[in-house]
Parts: sequence; C-alpha cells; structure tokens
Amino acid sequence: MQQSSGAVRTRIVLDAMGGDYAPAEPVKGAVDAVNARSDIQVLLVGQEDVVREELAKYTYPEDQIQVVHAEEVIETAEPPVNAIRRKKQSSIVIGMNMVKQKEADAFVSAGSSGAILVGGQVIVGRIKGIERPPLAPLIPTEKGVSLLIDCGANVDARASHLVQFAKMGSIYMENVLGVKKPRVAIVNIGAEEEKGNALVKETFPLLKACEDINFVGSIEAREIPKGEADVIVCEAFVGNVILKLYEGLSSTLIGAIKKGMMSTLKSKIGAALALPALKSTLKTFDATQYGGAPLLGLNGLVVKTHGSAKAKEITNSIFQCVTFKEEDINGKIRKNIVSSAEQEGM
Amino acid sequence: MQQSSGAVRTRIVLDAMGGDYAPAEPVKGAVDAVNARSDIQVLLVGQEDVVREELAKYTYPEDQIQVVHAEEVIETAEPPVNAIRRKKQSSIVIGMNMVKQKEADAFVSAGSSGAILVGGQVIVGRIKGIERPPLAPLIPTEKGVSLLIDCGANVDARASHLVQFAKMGSIYMENVLGVKKPRVAIVNIGAEEEKGNALVKETFPLLKACEDINFVGSIEAREIPKGEADVIVCEAFVGNVILKLYEGLSSTLIGAIKKGMMSTLKSKIGAALALPALKSTLKTFDATQYGGAPLLGLNGLVVKTHGSAKAKEITNSIFQCVTFKEEDINGKIRKNIVSSAEQEGM
Repeated sequence: MQQSSGAVRTRIVLDAMGGDYAPAEPVKGAVDAVNARSDIQVLLVGQEDVVREELAKYTYPEDQIQVVHAEEVIETAEPPVNAIRRKKQSSIVIGMNMVKQKEADAFVSAGSSGAILVGGQVIVGRIKGIERPPLAPLIPTEKGVSLLIDCGANVDARASHLVQFAKMGSIYMENVLGVKKPRVAIVNIGAEEEKGNALVKETFPLLKACEDINFVGSIEAREIPKGEADVIVCEAFVGNVILKLYEGLSSTLIGAIKKGMMSTLKSKIGAALALPALKSTLKTFDATQYGGAPLLGLNGLVVKTHGSAKAKEITNSIFQCVTFKEEDINGKIRKNIVSSAEQEGM
Repeated sequence: MQQSSGAVRTRIVLDAMGGDYAPAEPVKGAVDAVNARSDIQVLLVGQEDVVREELAKYTYPEDQIQVVHAEEVIETAEPPVNAIRRKKQSSIVIGMNMVKQKEADAFVSAGSSGAILVGGQVIVGRIKGIERPPLAPLIPTEKGVSLLIDCGANVDARASHLVQFAKMGSIYMENVLGVKKPRVAIVNIGAEEEKGNALVKETFPLLKACEDINFVGSIEAREIPKGEADVIVCEAFVGNVILKLYEGLSSTLIGAIKKGMMSTLKSKIGAALALPALKSTLKTFDATQYGGAPLLGLNGLVVKTHGSAKAKEITNSIFQCVTFKEEDINGKIRKNIVSSAEQEGM
C-alpha cells in the first residue's frame, strides 16, 4: 500500500467499534481524514460487514483505507483486565497488536477507557525506562489548551513517575502543539514551595532540579482555567477529578445559562440575538479540535478520544498521530528521558 | 448583656479585620444581623477606633454589638503557624481565645485561611475523640448545595479521618441545612467499588459499614455539580482542588460568556434583554446565602467565609452559627461519633 502512493504514509489503526456513535462516526472520521490528506493510511478494525456497509456511503481514495476484521467488541462496562485477556478477537486487542507488531504507527479509539489503558500497557508495552504511561488529555483554557498529565489509571504514583510525566508532557506540548518552552506546573493547594501533600513536597524539588523543562512551580486548581501553565502535572486520581469536574461543571453551568435565557419572553428574544456570538465563544472552549488524549511512553502511540466523539474529533485524532510520528515524539522521549534516567542510575 | 435581653443570645465573635473588605463589610454584616434578629450578640474584634468609626455609620440595637480591641492583624500572606504563635494581640487569636474560654459560642472570619485552620486546632482545640477537624464549605449544584468535606489543611489523611468527616458532615447537613437522611458519597475515579486509590479503597468498606449515615457509594467529579450527593467526602488535597476549580472554572466560563455576548451589536442587544433572567439563574448557583465554611469537630464553632465576603455572606454566617448552636451540633458529634469511636476502641 505504501509503495503505491510513492510516499511513506503514517499508518493509523482506528477502532471502528468504539464509542457511543460507532461505527458511523469513526468511519466518517476516517473518510474525512483520507479525503483531506494523502499521507495517511487508515486501518479500520471492526466487524467487517458492518464497517463496509458504512464505508459504502462515502467516496474516498480507496487505497488509503483498509478494513481489518475483528469479530468481538469490548463493551464500556466490562472489567478491563478480563476484557483484554479474553477478547483476543476484539477491535482493541487486534488494533493494539498491529501497533506492537509495527504494522501500524498508532491506534485511535473512542472505546472503553479502562481497556485502552490496560491494553496500552499490556499489549503495546512501555518504552524501556518509562515507569508508567500517563494519559494526557488537553483541557481548554482562556488562553488555549493545557495538557493535564496524568488522568489515567496510575493511582498512588511516586515522585519519579511525576518527573517523567513532566518531561513527556513538555516534549509533547513543544513538538505536537508547537508551544515554545512550555510552562510546567505541579497541581498544589497553595503557591508556596512548602505547601502540599507528601507526594507534591517530594516531587517539587525534583522538578525544580530538571534542567530540560521550564518548571514554573505550583499551580492551584483555580488558576488552571486561566491557562497559567501549559503542562499540568498531577497524579492520576487528582487528574481524573480535574478532568471530570471540568466536563461536569461546564455542562451544568452552560445548562443553567440556557435555562435562564429561556425563562422569560424577553430573555428568549435576547437569547436568539446573542446565540451565534455565544456559540462561537464557547467553541474556543473546546479541546476536541486538537484530537484525543495520548497515552504517552508506549512503544507506539495510543490515543483515547471521548466516548461521545463525533467524526471531527476522530479526524483530528488521526492528524494528531501524524504529527506525533513526524516529530518523532517517542525518539525524543527515549533520548531525553530514558537516557538521562539511565545515566542517573534510575 | 445576656440578662438585659431577657433571653439567651448566641454570642458570635466576628473578626472585623479579616478579608478583602475589612472592616467595612464585616461591620455592616454584623449590623444587618443584629437588626434582623434579637437573639444574637456580636462581639466585633479588631482595632477599636477603626471599628467604632465604621459602626458610627449605622443605627442598631447597641446592646447587641460589643467591640473587643485587638491591636494586631494577621495578613493573608503570613505563615500561619508563626502568625498564630506570635501575634497574640491579633483579632484571630483574641477571638478564638474567647471561644475557648466559653465567652463566645462561635468565631467568624474572612481572614487568612491558614491562620484560621491552625488557630482552630491550636487555640479552640478539637473535641476529644475527633482525630482531625475538617473544613467543610458548601458548593452550589443544580439541585441546591452539597457539603464538600474536607477542604482544609489535613493533607495525607487516613481512612478513619474520612469516616469521621462523613459522620460530621451528615450531622451538619441534616441539622443545619435540614436535609433528611443526607446522601453521603466518597469522591472516586469510577463508580465501581474496586476502583480508587489506596485511601479510597480502604475507606469505602468502612463507610459502607456505618449504620448511622446514608452512604450511597462513590461519586465521580463529573456528577458533583449535578447534586448527586449531599455530603461529598474526600481528603483535603482533593477537596481543595475541587473547591478551587469550581471557583476558577465558573468565573472563567461566565467571563467567556459575557465576552461572547458583548462581541457583536446584535449580541449586545440580546445580552441586554437576557441579562435579568440570566442573573437570577446564576444567583441560585451561589452558596454564600448559606454562610461560610464551618471548621467542624472543635470545642466551639469556627466559620471561614470567602476572603472576598461582602456583608450578606457575613450576616448569613452569623445566622449559621445560631442554627449550629440551637441544633447542638457539637453535642450530636460527641454523642454519635466520639462515643461510638470509644466503644470501638478507636
């Protein structure tokens, strides 16, 4: 396939069965991606007849999309470890194995977070020297987006993990998002260096001593939406709370505002007039234009999109994989993090 | 003073020097409180000449407000432990000593959080058997308010602390807020019982075994703004992150919406029409009508209001102290928590 295009394409396995709108939205996302760029090869993994039926609705350069059959589907509610172990014919297991076997560069899925996190570690595997692979979504801020690292399943993290998260996050923001000297901060309950729990107190001086990152100190949760840091380091429990509260509070507040605007005739007329401008403002407060959340530190790339991802988020996640490969993020992680860890005898 | 009114008044020491708008707003809050209710005695503690100058602006039943001179002021930026130890003549230290000496029932301050937390423990002191006093602010939700316990300085908490927080929070919500059988939940990163970090996994079965609370299981941060629990139990680091993100994200989103509405002429006209209805909706999303955050489990009551508290929040905090005393919250804490802990040999 690569030969036929005459150029090296980035090969992305896309889980056609994952997420609330599968297979329709993942398939549409794949079609939109290959219609936009010729340097992409999408391997749609899922139940072949279902996927082909969806694909038949579109026109696209056919050599850029391949269908890989996967009999099984991992459901969101399934216990992840069991699902990965038992459903060898699922789209997630087959897709991740293709990344492991170097048949693909990246795997994108809107499916079960737990299964993706477990599969990333167990099937794709960590880069040698990386202690734990963090899940690092982008969250919207007043100034753009920040990388929240880690929101994954690595509970009860150690200080050395957080230092690796800071370095990987910094490499990602600099090279994938193009942020020069990204400001790295650690989530804390006060700005002073002596504040924090045992983990933060232990991690703070280690981050301060890192010469290859732009560490700006502690960040209080209040400052996160203001965009006061580009890379926000925390352990996964705290990261998960931040991410979920971000989603929940935004939706509650916007819901309350809509309700308020619909409460009187006068306010309804006002809402109709203000709505277009309002929508365009709220659109900037949406991180899905950048793709999904990368699971970093693996031998390959795994990207988790929202379960509710529509085609646009899928397409953007595919583009994100191309940048990840072009910028050789894993090469930089190996060079900057693993080799320095080895030198320090970690 | 009490005799002169012919009834037993609740005696509240109010820090006249604490917060961004001191002494004006605390003094106004005190005046509004005594003008509204005759069963309150406010002891305004602060620099006497400054406080009297403010008081002179108002008419109020003079036997209900007393001024207690305090030469010193603890600033927000001062290291709390040092400040409490050295500034014996500060409004916070003098006020808390009055609670300790039973000269007052409660202390209310908009001043330094750190100093209030330290002073509460060191000066007022814990109820015998209470391991740690949690700070428990109310946060607004779609359905009203929830108690977020703990947001204080108790980092690296143990499971037994969280169990006491759950019980104290439940007593508070039932008796001060009037919520029947308050739903108690623990902050977690998934709904399943096996999810969580070491602390949550250890605490979950202990809460499940408590017969005197209505434990409903885990709550994900996404569900908090929806009002899915009345008492939200977490350790202070996580609580602090939730509280601060709540404040920061609300202000960022509302700011973005205002900006969006002011971006075109059409949207400006719309905004003018929608604003009154919108304001009344957002007012329901404001917890200050219930007062400040109580520091629970002390020999007396200490209430921390926002640093930016205006008179209304101060007045509401004074009323909150009256309910706290009338409902004998500390008696209930002693009876339900301490005695059961003693029986269990804790």
